[in-house]
Amino acid sequence: MTATNRQVRLASRPAGPVTPELFSLTEAPVPEPGPGEVLVRNVYLSVDPYMRGRMNDAKSYVPPFAVGEVLTGGVVGRVAASRNPAFREGEWVNGLLGWETYSLTSGQGLYKLPDANVPKSWWLGVLGTPGMTAYVGLFEIGRAQAGETVFISAAAGAVGSVAGQLAKIHGCRVAGCAGSDEKVALLLNELGFDAAFNYRTSESLRESLRKVCPGGIDVDFENVGGDLLEAALRHMRPFGRIVLCGMIAQYDDTEPRPGPRGLIGMIGKRLTMRGFIVTDHPETCREYVPKALRWLEEGRLEYRETIAEGIENAPAAFIDMLQGNKIGKQIVRLAAED
Amino acid sequence: MTATNRQVRLASRPAGPVTPELFSLTEAPVPEPGPGEVLVRNVYLSVDPYMRGRMNDAKSYVPPFAVGEVLTGGVVGRVAASRNPAFREGEWVNGLLGWETYSLTSGQGLYKLPDANVPKSWWLGVLGTPGMTAYVGLFEIGRAQAGETVFISAAAGAVGSVAGQLAKIHGCRVAGCAGSDEKVALLLNELGFDAAFNYRTSESLRESLRKVCPGGIDVDFENVGGDLLEAALRHMRPFGRIVLCGMIAQYDDTEPRPGPRGLIGMIGKRLTMRGFIVTDHPETCREYVPKALRWLEEGRLEYRETIAEGIENAPAAFIDMLQGNKIGKQIVRLAAED
Repeated sequence: MTATNRQVRLASRPAGPVTPELFSLTEAPVPEPGPGEVLVRNVYLSVDPYMRGRMNDAKSYVPPFAVGEVLTGGVVGRVAASRNPAFREGEWVNGLLGWETYSLTSGQGLYKLPDANVPKSWWLGVLGTPGMTAYVGLFEIGRAQAGETVFISAAAGAVGSVAGQLAKIHGCRVAGCAGSDEKVALLLNELGFDAAFNYRTSESLRESLRKVCPGGIDVDFENVGGDLLEAALRHMRPFGRIVLCGMIAQYDDTEPRPGPRGLIGMIGKRLTMRGFIVTDHPETCREYVPKALRWLEEGRLEYRETIAEGIENAPAAFIDMLQGNKIGKQIVRLAAED
Repeated sequence: MTATNRQVRLASRPAGPVTPELFSLTEAPVPEPGPGEVLVRNVYLSVDPYMRGRMNDAKSYVPPFAVGEVLTGGVVGRVAASRNPAFREGEWVNGLLGWETYSLTSGQGLYKLPDANVPKSWWLGVLGTPGMTAYVGLFEIGRAQAGETVFISAAAGAVGSVAGQLAKIHGCRVAGCAGSDEKVALLLNELGFDAAFNYRTSESLRESLRKVCPGGIDVDFENVGGDLLEAALRHMRPFGRIVLCGMIAQYDDTEPRPGPRGLIGMIGKRLTMRGFIVTDHPETCREYVPKALRWLEEGRLEYRETIAEGIENAPAAFIDMLQGNKIGKQIVRLAAED
């Protein structure tokens, strides 16, 4: 191998919003697999909100990224060379690999893509962690029932857009909010949401919520946190469930911010608020994939992605995703498929 | 009947802490039961934290007390006269009746006391709503498991003191906090808590929690709210449960206060926070009473009460309870038992 491995490293930790200067692009020779190892040519890289947490030096369910090291993320790629009998050259795989054009791995945590007639990048989105997160959050954590009202924040995002459609398929009434009129139009006109509003132009989140969920909220699928969570909390119906999936509004906080006002209302309304991590629920994830494939085939599940080109644009794509600048799942294409 | 019915009414609503001036003591003739009605001579009256919420003009799971009306609460008494075939004169009963020496009722929601060799007032405490609340909260809501660490705030109170002992019987490690050194000594020396601290003299709630629960908290049985909830939240172990039973520190708030900092940690730690009302769980309550009677008989469950004398002292007893001035369950004796 004489090719170059182009890699994105964490140059320094953020103190507030993520900026391009926090990343560095470096080059190294493409490594050769040793005994038992697999070399993957990375084709699609997923940039996801949880990665923001890993940029801080904080203990969490995944260890922080190390300064100076290559970032990691969900990748779909092809086996370029293998000295592991479980993988053969040319096979499509996915796993948690590097923000780099080639990754060397032991093969542990590397999976062959199922045989299905869908774009390969979808295994990082609607058929991957974001889709599974929507399914687990909505049904296993939120226990959404047909006929109930589900509210979804960041509803045009990778997780929210799937969650809303799954809730509709399940027979729920679904409302959501998003950060632009274009996204709101997508929710209403293409993803089948019953109601939606633009939270950036809302003059009162409480009024907006009342308008889109006039009877209150049974399941709040929370991706945003902050003021939206506070407004949702007040608007919950008795016995409602608040699914804490993410709090993207708070990821740049340098100090813990006060929680929502009115938490005391959780007692009288018998509310449940529960945080979750999708990887704790492998059974439910396995149950989801064949269902999602069928719904996609039947046209009941729509999927949108924005694809940035080239490893050098991964940091910008990540920042775009954090700022909500694009629609649907943000992917970075690192190489051609063939 | 020529006796006098002495009644405590809500004179005006509080704006902050409850004061004696908010109550008025009035007199009326003792009523005669009409067809189907039961007249109860009230012997013991329970004053409980949830009543503070009913003094506000706020929608909740129980309607607010009306200004000018007789307050209501849990009562144990004896049937003084009955035109309801289900109840006979002299029978011991309990139910939600008035803060008054005699109550007239249709008999709906009135229950005969089970036959057991315990003080009658205990049916308002360890064998009544507070005991049931401890049991439901700990096991049905909090899912406490043997070997886990349970932390209880307001641990010397009517609910907390039972919850702590139930957790110990179940094989949990139990720590708690209370508002005086005398209460802390009770927890450690008589109720079998493994560790406890005085939150009023604690210089750092986080440090105090770390000391009494060095490995973190699996189940936080929350009776206090405010800063204590914030400290407990930070000290929860992964997959922990926060049982929202009460927030006595916040009942006097006139504006909703900000919630605990660090709520975002609920995601990474997969925490569940759940509010509950004991009356939603009648099956679990029924399951509890025979168990509690047996534990009391075996000396595994200790019970403390403070008894104030006379209906005229009910407001002061209520205020004492809210301020945490006394130990154990606060009861008001309205009449002799015979």
